[in-house]
Amino acid sequence: MIPQIIIGKKPVLRYVTACITTFNRGSNRVTLRARGRRISSCVDVVNALRRGFLTDIQIESINIGTETITINSKERKISYIEITLRR
Amino acid sequence: MIPQIIIGKKPVLRYVTACITTFNRGSNRVTLRARGRRISSCVDVVNALRRGFLTDIQIESINIGTETITINSKERKISYIEITLRR
Repeated sequence: MIPQIIIGKKPVLRYVTACITTFNRGSNRVTLRARGRRISSCVDVVNALRRGFLTDIQIESINIGTETITINSKERKISYIEITLRR
Repeated sequence: MIPQIIIGKKPVLRYVTACITTFNRGSNRVTLRARGRRISSCVDVVNALRRGFLTDIQIESINIGTETITINSKERKISYIEITLRR
């Protein structure tokens, strides 16, 4: 089971810190997941992490897809991205 | 040389159409590229294309990274994504 971090609307550095904490606790992998407009932030988190903090991090996989969410009993399609990092 | 489509601020369906046109002209690959906040739109384009138009499309590769742009003679880092599709 790979630890998962959901990217929301907090500042990018919060998620960078969350990744570092996860790796420091002994995990050798972490998956970042974001939907809709947060997809861009997800890429920002990975780049900030690799550029400034954990330069030995590898991108193991990047998956994209669509999921269905229900807002006010209406179904909507929303894009997501999942990026798995390996130390 | 793989044809490249740069994702900007036009509606998603415009880029979907551009991909279909590129494939119909005989290319078996196309690369979609987006920077910053457009990264989410890029994923939307791929998902819309695969869901509704060309269901036999495969994702060949997804790359992310950072590039440096200069705005008002100040350097800034900006994230990008490149998604290569194969028919």
